[in-house]
Amino acid sequence: MTEIAQLPHLQPFFAMEILAMAKTLEAEGRKICHLEVGEPGAAPAPEVIAAVQQSAQTDPQRYTPAKGDLALRRALVDYYRQQHKAIVNPENILVTNGSSAGFVLAFLSGFEKGSKIAVTRPGYPAYLNIISSLGFEPVEIELSASNGWRLDADAVRAAHSETPFDGLLLASPANPTGAMIEREEFARIMNACDDLDVRFISDEIYHGLSHGLPETSALELSDNALIINSFSKYYCMTGWRLGWLVLPDEMVRQTEILAQNMFISAPSLSQVAGRVALPCRDYYDQQKAAYVRNGMLLVEALSEMGFKDARMSDGAFYAYVGIEGFAQDSVAFCKALLQEAGVAATPGVDFDRVNGHKFVRFSYAGDHDMLVEAIEKMAGFLSRPLSL
Amino acid sequence: MTEIAQLPHLQPFFAMEILAMAKTLEAEGRKICHLEVGEPGAAPAPEVIAAVQQSAQTDPQRYTPAKGDLALRRALVDYYRQQHKAIVNPENILVTNGSSAGFVLAFLSGFEKGSKIAVTRPGYPAYLNIISSLGFEPVEIELSASNGWRLDADAVRAAHSETPFDGLLLASPANPTGAMIEREEFARIMNACDDLDVRFISDEIYHGLSHGLPETSALELSDNALIINSFSKYYCMTGWRLGWLVLPDEMVRQTEILAQNMFISAPSLSQVAGRVALPCRDYYDQQKAAYVRNGMLLVEALSEMGFKDARMSDGAFYAYVGIEGFAQDSVAFCKALLQEAGVAATPGVDFDRVNGHKFVRFSYAGDHDMLVEAIEKMAGFLSRPLSL
Repeated sequence: MTEIAQLPHLQPFFAMEILAMAKTLEAEGRKICHLEVGEPGAAPAPEVIAAVQQSAQTDPQRYTPAKGDLALRRALVDYYRQQHKAIVNPENILVTNGSSAGFVLAFLSGFEKGSKIAVTRPGYPAYLNIISSLGFEPVEIELSASNGWRLDADAVRAAHSETPFDGLLLASPANPTGAMIEREEFARIMNACDDLDVRFISDEIYHGLSHGLPETSALELSDNALIINSFSKYYCMTGWRLGWLVLPDEMVRQTEILAQNMFISAPSLSQVAGRVALPCRDYYDQQKAAYVRNGMLLVEALSEMGFKDARMSDGAFYAYVGIEGFAQDSVAFCKALLQEAGVAATPGVDFDRVNGHKFVRFSYAGDHDMLVEAIEKMAGFLSRPLSL
Repeated sequence: MTEIAQLPHLQPFFAMEILAMAKTLEAEGRKICHLEVGEPGAAPAPEVIAAVQQSAQTDPQRYTPAKGDLALRRALVDYYRQQHKAIVNPENILVTNGSSAGFVLAFLSGFEKGSKIAVTRPGYPAYLNIISSLGFEPVEIELSASNGWRLDADAVRAAHSETPFDGLLLASPANPTGAMIEREEFARIMNACDDLDVRFISDEIYHGLSHGLPETSALELSDNALIINSFSKYYCMTGWRLGWLVLPDEMVRQTEILAQNMFISAPSLSQVAGRVALPCRDYYDQQKAAYVRNGMLLVEALSEMGFKDARMSDGAFYAYVGIEGFAQDSVAFCKALLQEAGVAATPGVDFDRVNGHKFVRFSYAGDHDMLVEAIEKMAGFLSRPLSL
């Protein structure tokens, strides 16, 4: 038996190819500046670490209920009340093994097999791969740098009239662009979805990381929202694999049963960490302030070097910039940048299989000194003739 | 938009209904003996807790590679060499968010949508629900108490000639019966699968918990094996959500990409715990010895009380016994047992939707004193006339 499933849409992350190259260079003794990974350099708040150490010692770390520990779900209720003036029933919250498992559950429970689910292009690469691997069909709505990579309700309606879809998955702030949708337009998009009988899924994983614009949760606008969120980004907890769903009433029971069968429960120690992390906003806002300082520095430097569309994004910690002045192929560009300058970045093809060869994503969530060094090295690299 | 996916095969665990009832009774002040949960009462080895506390303090807990931390995969290579005299390449090992995520990845990567996957009845209830929720079709092979609930190669061939299937998923030791398949028959089953062009998946989650028979890993018998395992049972790490796959060469790359997209990586702190747990076999064998003592006591008492087929199983920590002498409906029986005697057990319908009304599963992985108390209470309950 050597046949395996045909998953023709499945594509690896080029970021991983870059990361593997970077590790090879590091093993050879080269120093590499990591601007390719979408994860914060900072640790969780000290209170979180202390609580985890205590719980590891004293609590048995058994399965929790499939929906998650009630104390954590109640802390999430407080979070929505404080951050979004929104009331949510803890019964509608389902704690997940990262937002990754949240996507799996939301798609399987929310859509019939074969349903079409729309996402933006560029967008988070796992969207397409999860959607197609589970037996759904992705529909891409193309965004443009000219309007700051923002989706609007007209574009949703236009895309739907071309290829009707059953769901729309939208992140604001977005990966890789950091684009945010303001509240009024957000409401128009959700209304368009209601009109078109499209289930709206709000990926709020970059919430907390706005650079100034108010963050709109779908929960403020509708009782019918399906929200996916995570502790990975704002709470600096990537490796803890903890996220959550807010489910509309009609999906609660089925999604709970599905979660019970497919995942049993999220890691218990991570649930302790998440509960303690939620109120530590002073600490996490300090981390965000550091990202913003990094971002301003990076964006100005990228602009001076000649990257296109290098401007501060609305949120998250990424600069998604055009490389047309230097190269025609972002994979080749990223490989040369890594090989010759020791700077790792993610080629745009991870986020956009059509136009991504013209773009590169830099993450500025890492260490400040590393960023300064990366900028110097890039400037040197680009001042020499490129052989691509 | 209020339609949700139709998942007609999806069934909640009745164990959860019993657990919810038990919690209600406990909230009312009743003391409940928990024999319903399939998780060890013991904590992980002290070395594990110490390593976790240290790592929480000093390591950043970021995403690991999708396949898992290399140090953990190398420790698993050692495990196979020491326990099974089997050589495995660390590249063929993929660390998962519990065996749950392992099933999802194995099915999606190993089978075309619509494929038929055979499982035993009785069996772990999530098998059927995961298989059907992901768009595959389960085929059940009925086992019988008369031959100790053991599958054999003839039964595989007979079932396949009736309804050809593409995969066979088998656990030895099994849940809920604890049945084990001896090496020779195991090899015959795997050969039958090869003959029939059936992908064989070996669920080895109860390995380490044999009561005497040697445990056969599929890895000893074939390079082509697909193995699912977990740290939950023998290593007492249910809430840590950590498992692993051993993949045949042709599935490695696709499953890695799928894991990267669907789960990113397993919890980093749990990976530290797993790596440290693997060599602590003295500690874990002591826990197993306690389960065996509990099991002997329970099985003898159940037999005396009149439960059918109450005998010590080959492995795991369950007694799956017939209730025909008392009742016709295992859900009603378990509810009465809980309500009147304060003993929680799992109705057989969770494991067998056809004949499970005649069986109940007791777990004896918990505390010894609780088990003694449960036996006394059950004996009292059964000595009175039942009104079911």
